Amino acid sequence: MLPRLLVRSPTSFFTRFRTLRTMAAPITVNVAVIGVGLVGSEFISQLLGLPQPSPFKLISLTSSSRTLFSPSAPLAPGVDWKAALAASSEKPDLANLTEQLAALVSPQQKVAIIDNTSSDDVAARYPAWLEKGINVVTPNKKAFSGDVALYDALVGATAKSGAKCFHEATVGAGLPVISTLKDLVATGDKILKIEGVFSGTMSYIFNEFSTGAAGGPAFSAVVKEAREKGYTEPHPADDLNGADVARKLAILARVAAPARDAKLPKLGSFADVATKSLIPAPLEGVKTGDEFVARLPEFDGEFTGLREEASKAGEVLRFVGVVDAVKGEVKAGLERYSSTHPFATALGGSDNIIMFHTERYSPRPLIVQGAGAGAAVTAMGVLADLLRLA
Amino acid sequence: MLPRLLVRSPTSFFTRFRTLRTMAAPITVNVAVIGVGLVGSEFISQLLGLPQPSPFKLISLTSSSRTLFSPSAPLAPGVDWKAALAASSEKPDLANLTEQLAALVSPQQKVAIIDNTSSDDVAARYPAWLEKGINVVTPNKKAFSGDVALYDALVGATAKSGAKCFHEATVGAGLPVISTLKDLVATGDKILKIEGVFSGTMSYIFNEFSTGAAGGPAFSAVVKEAREKGYTEPHPADDLNGADVARKLAILARVAAPARDAKLPKLGSFADVATKSLIPAPLEGVKTGDEFVARLPEFDGEFTGLREEASKAGEVLRFVGVVDAVKGEVKAGLERYSSTHPFATALGGSDNIIMFHTERYSPRPLIVQGAGAGAAVTAMGVLADLLRLA
Repeated sequence: MLPRLLVRSPTSFFTRFRTLRTMAAPITVNVAVIGVGLVGSEFISQLLGLPQPSPFKLISLTSSSRTLFSPSAPLAPGVDWKAALAASSEKPDLANLTEQLAALVSPQQKVAIIDNTSSDDVAARYPAWLEKGINVVTPNKKAFSGDVALYDALVGATAKSGAKCFHEATVGAGLPVISTLKDLVATGDKILKIEGVFSGTMSYIFNEFSTGAAGGPAFSAVVKEAREKGYTEPHPADDLNGADVARKLAILARVAAPARDAKLPKLGSFADVATKSLIPAPLEGVKTGDEFVARLPEFDGEFTGLREEASKAGEVLRFVGVVDAVKGEVKAGLERYSSTHPFATALGGSDNIIMFHTERYSPRPLIVQGAGAGAAVTAMGVLADLLRLA
Repeated sequence: MLPRLLVRSPTSFFTRFRTLRTMAAPITVNVAVIGVGLVGSEFISQLLGLPQPSPFKLISLTSSSRTLFSPSAPLAPGVDWKAALAASSEKPDLANLTEQLAALVSPQQKVAIIDNTSSDDVAARYPAWLEKGINVVTPNKKAFSGDVALYDALVGATAKSGAKCFHEATVGAGLPVISTLKDLVATGDKILKIEGVFSGTMSYIFNEFSTGAAGGPAFSAVVKEAREKGYTEPHPADDLNGADVARKLAILARVAAPARDAKLPKLGSFADVATKSLIPAPLEGVKTGDEFVARLPEFDGEFTGLREEASKAGEVLRFVGVVDAVKGEVKAGLERYSSTHPFATALGGSDNIIMFHTERYSPRPLIVQGAGAGAAVTAMGVLADLLRLA
């Protein structure tokens, strides 16, 4: 049977079409980008690459040294936006930008700020933006993993104004992690435990260092190579301290907190996550990455010892994060997993893997896996969030 | 630094709050459920379990034998909806229901029909519903995998009216499969290949039958046990013919078709998917499941032979589906995978696993894995879609 639509006359069809268009007028989303580094540039490129006409108007760019605000002549596909920004003589002034953007908010026009920085100062402005009806989309972890007063303020502001604050790319970059967790929570599933390898750097290091086989490269050699490939921060201690993982766990714990029967502690900040740093105590406070890498071999014995113990038991070492909503624990550290566990068998490269153990996904979890860092996949996570606003 | 919001006076705060509430008035979504079987009942239970007040009003239920339409007194949490439906004397009349629901569509009120049936007749009505501004959310695969005229009509109707047609649960139930693919496509990624184990039944059968070790149970014994556990359709041929997998592949191929540089054939229907059925030729057309299972042992030798060939090569057998956007192929069938491949190591139970190979997720794919069938996770997929409407 053909659907009725196909046998309607073109006239009645068109009449209805016009009626409904009037009801749901297309909404314009004015987009202001703050931060035009690696992720910001890739985001702009993906945004301007959307099929045209798109509902988005790129009306503002802000770098650390200058700003461009051009609502009447948005940056169009094909434009040299770097040159346009460089040609602007305006210094960045977020207070002024806020007022300019707030003036554009109306029932027909949305405004979205894309924060592609990792700045605490920018993050602190989210509640004020949201309160004014400006949407916020960001891969910046600071607001969601930092001081709980800021987090509560931004959640409160979204509830009051209806503006959205989307941050899928703060955990796992473009992987569907936050959205999946939100869906589980919102549809009434009971979250039991979220566990995973949340750091691409840690993933790479331990996938190389601990394969389950006896022997293998020295820990310091793996870290050195990872640094040379650009997989670590310039100072590898910034990865090995586990803070990045702790921040992601704080974000997940906060998103999971409203779930049915969840027994999660109210985290003051990511510093409340029980995090076992991998930095050898004598290397705490070493100032430069070069010195850190030069001295790390002194501690290879300890890491080799852990690896040997694990491999004798048929296990591997992985730096994992756990949000346990039954025990009420949020923790990050080096753990041992059987060589047949997905953390041992399924991981490779610098993949993230996240397992959601829930009442519905039990005994086998819902798993999301893939590259969890990099400009292209991070920008994709941001843009996918932005598309949900339109 | 505390965000500004925290130091504003309560008065200015409240004033702003009221202003914004006026701008973004909360929208009511009137929900009409068609199909109140396993998935439908679970969906209603999840919907009525949402935190109150919720934007959703459950105003209509339709089973195969009766219908309830009660916009002035929606079904509330705690109500015995089965009794309410049983007490209705109205026979189901979808044409009448359509008119009743269409009359409720307004800028302040949305209407969503939840089709929890697997009916072709219900699916054929989607374009007419969408055209009238009624949103459709469904786990019913028929409209998305059937006749391309129906599919094109519903896509056209959404584009014209602005009404949404969400169907996450048609592939992988509650797993984020369609939404992930849509995000990849919409943000401009190039889809190379989607491959996966898309049938929970096929997953269970081959996880049991082909573990990579030499020997193992007879194929017919595994099928018999799966049927006794309720993992197969009453007639196992309805699983072994691969049609369910072909339908899911047709859905993915259609969603992926608009992707950058995708070379995908325009499928007339799921019947155009190159599907290698596992039904032994002499058993084609066997009428009952009982007879099918009784005669299946005659063909155990063939399956054992395939398993032996595979295990000698260090491989396992899996029934997989592939959407290859580079070669332009869409196909389903039994394939061999190395014992170290995730399809061999990561799968268990009746899990689905879906790998997205894209330009951004390359060389390692984005992977989603977990239970891909069952009332609770299917209803969750439907409800998560519905939540996006509010």
